[in-house]
Amino acid sequence: MKKNKLNIALIGLGNIGSYLYKYLQENKKILSKKNNCIPEIIYVSAKNKNKKRNIKINKNKWLKNYLDSTILKNVDVIVELIGGAEGAAKKLVFNALKNKKHVVTANKALIAKYGDQLSKIAEKNKVNLEFEAAVCGGVPIIRSLKEGLIANKISRVYGIFNGTSNYILSNMDKDRKSFNDVLFDAKRKGYAESNPISDLNGDDVASKLKILSSLCFNSFINHKIHVEGINSIDSFDIDNANKLGYKIKLLGVAEIINNKVYQRVHPTLIKQSSYIASIDGVLNAVIVDGKPVGENVIQGEGAGPEATTSALVSDISSILRGNVKFPFSISSKERKSLNYSNIAERTFSAYLRFEVFDRPGVLSKITNIFSKNKVSIKRLIQNPNKSKKFSSIVIITHNSKDKSLVKIIKQIEKKPYITKKPKLIRIGTN
Amino acid sequence: MKKNKLNIALIGLGNIGSYLYKYLQENKKILSKKNNCIPEIIYVSAKNKNKKRNIKINKNKWLKNYLDSTILKNVDVIVELIGGAEGAAKKLVFNALKNKKHVVTANKALIAKYGDQLSKIAEKNKVNLEFEAAVCGGVPIIRSLKEGLIANKISRVYGIFNGTSNYILSNMDKDRKSFNDVLFDAKRKGYAESNPISDLNGDDVASKLKILSSLCFNSFINHKIHVEGINSIDSFDIDNANKLGYKIKLLGVAEIINNKVYQRVHPTLIKQSSYIASIDGVLNAVIVDGKPVGENVIQGEGAGPEATTSALVSDISSILRGNVKFPFSISSKERKSLNYSNIAERTFSAYLRFEVFDRPGVLSKITNIFSKNKVSIKRLIQNPNKSKKFSSIVIITHNSKDKSLVKIIKQIEKKPYITKKPKLIRIGTN
Repeated sequence: MKKNKLNIALIGLGNIGSYLYKYLQENKKILSKKNNCIPEIIYVSAKNKNKKRNIKINKNKWLKNYLDSTILKNVDVIVELIGGAEGAAKKLVFNALKNKKHVVTANKALIAKYGDQLSKIAEKNKVNLEFEAAVCGGVPIIRSLKEGLIANKISRVYGIFNGTSNYILSNMDKDRKSFNDVLFDAKRKGYAESNPISDLNGDDVASKLKILSSLCFNSFINHKIHVEGINSIDSFDIDNANKLGYKIKLLGVAEIINNKVYQRVHPTLIKQSSYIASIDGVLNAVIVDGKPVGENVIQGEGAGPEATTSALVSDISSILRGNVKFPFSISSKERKSLNYSNIAERTFSAYLRFEVFDRPGVLSKITNIFSKNKVSIKRLIQNPNKSKKFSSIVIITHNSKDKSLVKIIKQIEKKPYITKKPKLIRIGTN
Repeated sequence: MKKNKLNIALIGLGNIGSYLYKYLQENKKILSKKNNCIPEIIYVSAKNKNKKRNIKINKNKWLKNYLDSTILKNVDVIVELIGGAEGAAKKLVFNALKNKKHVVTANKALIAKYGDQLSKIAEKNKVNLEFEAAVCGGVPIIRSLKEGLIANKISRVYGIFNGTSNYILSNMDKDRKSFNDVLFDAKRKGYAESNPISDLNGDDVASKLKILSSLCFNSFINHKIHVEGINSIDSFDIDNANKLGYKIKLLGVAEIINNKVYQRVHPTLIKQSSYIASIDGVLNAVIVDGKPVGENVIQGEGAGPEATTSALVSDISSILRGNVKFPFSISSKERKSLNYSNIAERTFSAYLRFEVFDRPGVLSKITNIFSKNKVSIKRLIQNPNKSKKFSSIVIITHNSKDKSLVKIIKQIEKKPYITKKPKLIRIGTN
């Protein structure tokens, strides 16, 4: 029988946990009315109990050990806000589901790594495992895929899934500043963490993409994925992109082409006039191509306590309403093992940039390597340095196999006329 | 106990009904797996049984009378695709809910007019009344408001809710064609119905806005709404907008300002650089401002059998999963009667256009009327006609009460120097 009250243990009281605690206190009445069930936080736990927080928590709510929440009989739902794929978060979520507690988590790393295993336990024990907050907080994409867009056979999901890197790329463009200057600025404003490695190297996007991909394609999570971050993008690339009518965006893309799945995260040149090029700052956007619906776009704030709380509360509400659902939209028994292909086999038009000593014959040596690899050149721009000792060669190719493009880079980067590591930025979303 | 099969009667077999029928036949297996329940169409009905359709329907599925679906014990769900706020559709849906059948409908006119009454019957009888397909088909906004964004206190919902009028406005702009030429073209391509009155006069948007507004604000449906269509927009307005850095869009806006609700549908000048200005053609976009989530955007195809089927199937799936929910997100007992204000009291910056005989003194007479009404002018452009007998005066005002703007129009339109009905187009979304 459906309960009229669910008891929640909230584990992790950083910015997000504290905001959620306050939100649930202030909005208990309206949530109870909408979901016909009262959400009651009866326990909390955090690494540092004595840290200054903006909330008042009754002393007897504090658990002695966070793992007690998984054993105590009066706990129905555990909200995990510890973070990280291993350690405490992993222990908590596995134990919670094993002991038939519903779980709500914002932990993308954990779900991307152990989502398949966790999902099987949740299904066996008929409890919910909800992770809307793990993917683009303020964008209700998980629930839309599981419910609003449930009718659709999805062939592609892509978008901007990381606010920090998008903030950096759009501000390098807008303010004509260097990567490091904008990063410094982003840290100061709280748009980048003190250690933003996983935001910048593409790993954060990769976790989100793996989760979305498995939801969209009814498949198990697959770790075959090409990941590049934005670390090597410099102002000159941004300027070149502008001159050519593009913006540079860090995209995550999962797509099915001829029954093969490609998962990839990399900086991409996007036409200035396209929708995705207009997504600036810390915004996130997810685009889904499905049949029969066509193209669907959802856009919102990607992170921060506010947007994440919106997602967490939507998960908690779903549990309050008493809907036990498959965590990945379909039973684990029905999820498929698809054929995942390497990006090397996909074709792209691409931007390649070579910094060279400006000597006679260099250009023809470079174009010769393109020709030997059967990659045809659509456009070539040579910019001599002021000193005229160095030159920058930018080449836009026609559609070519990715492996040929990479091979060209590898062949040319060893040449004595090269002064800097050459660059490859893929173009477009098609 | 949750059934493992639900029997559906599909009433109405036009383009959408036929597409849905085919879709459900082809996707029964995957939907059954995702929702743990089989959707089975056991009856159909349509005005013209013998019309040529692209589907094969077993003879014994045809009902003698469509209303039998509301009585037959083996029917669980009725999908109403008749359309119209009165007559057959109204009879069907009221009877269905009274007889404890779940209802799925794409009928915006019916829900905008009778949604409150219908909702009370559905709640009393513990059945679902679902209408995702009634508002912007391919945009899963209803489910997002009820579930993905459930945490949020919404202060404004607005957007482009009518594909036909948006197609006309964007093509008048893109192709520099007249309203009538583009309308003719839209009819030929199937983007406008043979009788597109409610698409062009704003009524279609008004129905959708009333539904969204009541969902966003937890209030009853309210019919205090200002409605203008696009019929009076001409190429010269589009050109002026472009020169001034704007696009003209038909917006629906529901907003709470100082505890008063304003509902309005009218052509609006939107900054070219804004997101909403980029929504062209038959696309729809809904923007929600809420706390804590911030701004949220959902964009997709607005109409057509494909997008509408995506919405209908999401509603059917919700019923298959066995979630009986409040049709308007919250119990009728808890829905509020808010304070609705007239647009006359709201302030706008606005574009006013006067076509006049080009005589000395006319300009000063016009500006004098502005000044008497305490409306200050931000910008004034006077374009003499080639013959120099006529002149066009475009005025952009500072923020002013809407009633003052309307008063100015009314005072000036009677003057002997006026050659055409003057125009008022409000600016911006703030």
